[in-house]
Amino acid sequence: LARLANDSLAEMIADYPGRFLPVGTIAMDDMESGLTEAEHCLQDLGMLGIQIYSNARGRAIDHPEFFPLYAMAAEAGKPLWLHPARALSRADYVDEPSSYHSMAFVLGWPYETTQAMTRLVFAGIFEQLPELKIIVHHAGAMVPLLARRIETAYNQEHTADHTYTIMTTGEKAPLQRPVIDYFRMFYTDTASHGSVMAIRGAYEFFGPEHLLFGTDSPFDFQCGRELTPIHLNAIASAVASPKDRELIFGGNLQRLLA
Amino acid sequence: LARLANDSLAEMIADYPGRFLPVGTIAMDDMESGLTEAEHCLQDLGMLGIQIYSNARGRAIDHPEFFPLYAMAAEAGKPLWLHPARALSRADYVDEPSSYHSMAFVLGWPYETTQAMTRLVFAGIFEQLPELKIIVHHAGAMVPLLARRIETAYNQEHTADHTYTIMTTGEKAPLQRPVIDYFRMFYTDTASHGSVMAIRGAYEFFGPEHLLFGTDSPFDFQCGRELTPIHLNAIASAVASPKDRELIFGGNLQRLLA
Repeated sequence: LARLANDSLAEMIADYPGRFLPVGTIAMDDMESGLTEAEHCLQDLGMLGIQIYSNARGRAIDHPEFFPLYAMAAEAGKPLWLHPARALSRADYVDEPSSYHSMAFVLGWPYETTQAMTRLVFAGIFEQLPELKIIVHHAGAMVPLLARRIETAYNQEHTADHTYTIMTTGEKAPLQRPVIDYFRMFYTDTASHGSVMAIRGAYEFFGPEHLLFGTDSPFDFQCGRELTPIHLNAIASAVASPKDRELIFGGNLQRLLA
Repeated sequence: LARLANDSLAEMIADYPGRFLPVGTIAMDDMESGLTEAEHCLQDLGMLGIQIYSNARGRAIDHPEFFPLYAMAAEAGKPLWLHPARALSRADYVDEPSSYHSMAFVLGWPYETTQAMTRLVFAGIFEQLPELKIIVHHAGAMVPLLARRIETAYNQEHTADHTYTIMTTGEKAPLQRPVIDYFRMFYTDTASHGSVMAIRGAYEFFGPEHLLFGTDSPFDFQCGRELTPIHLNAIASAVASPKDRELIFGGNLQRLLA
């Protein structure tokens, strides 16, 4: 299915030259095929990078089976796009069969992204692959909002946790920097339903060089025509510097893909 | 245990007159005793209100068994303080025995609060008890950040959900206002590890009359001496209006307790 999706996407893009930039899809529940497909996307189809999800059928994405993908992306200098995934079949409470009021999607997706980022940080991903570029969705999810909570909690004795497992040797190693610093190594996009608070938070937390224009278009009531101006307005409110806005609108992506 | 806690708290407070304002504790997994204890707190001990948790042993707090508590609080004009609860024994991923890196606490608590607020909104709590005052912890958790996501999602056809069950009759009724408006009816506190982003977001979303001074003191490395100045500084940055700061520092609580 991933092969079909990627080849079809490549074909469609060839029909509209200069209009779309493709990112590849892989099956994360079978990383042997996933790695083959990632190679196909990057080498044969010339895609910009690979989209991954915040969990693989409910499992965290810091398991050793995923590290070859991260190493491949780092080596190739290709970013990974991290998108949330949480099905409505996942119940929010112990006595219920599924998520009510779509909470698994509305609230759960930003939560999922934040969990995945935290797991990657504690897997020492940026110690082992400092060149790896991961672009998370939705203005960094909950991370800018909770930055001080994260920073404080992981400096408190009862919740401190500062070692990771080296993927090539299986040995333990200490994280070299404060935990919150690794969170700043992610990249993110502005897609936030046009929230000035979210975009300003991401801009201040990740910095102007780690924020990319994104809108979630076409997921509105007008096939995307609402989301684009809403995000343009929100960015205008959240980011005063014209130089930083240029980075967000294109400079950062150009640099990431160079 | 709740009775012991409440009576002991009342005794301790009597030993330090003018220094503490007590809030009662109840067992939410046995609401018959919970209601008796709430009455004891409010009527016999003269407590300001009752603290509830974001779930009751993993169950949502919009089940009909909890409505008598909400009705009692609304009738007595006493606020409920809503505190998050999520144990580290609750796993984040399907193949793990418990939460790793304390994520259930660091990230899960704000998520829990947000879920509980959403469930109460869709239970029509503020339609049925418009006078009920619920003070949620942590600057409204994820709600100010996700306000536009919440607003958009619950206006989209596939996730729309605009009826609730009337607690006294069991009949269905429509929510009368846009979903996001009910979220603004909660009160919250400034406790956010001193996050200017969180406090500014809560101030703008809930409004100056729904934000109360809070610090989470004494949970820092100096028995609370760090958290208080950090929050004072953050409020000074987030709230420009001296009149609104007075509301946050005392006016709102005085009005709520009048």
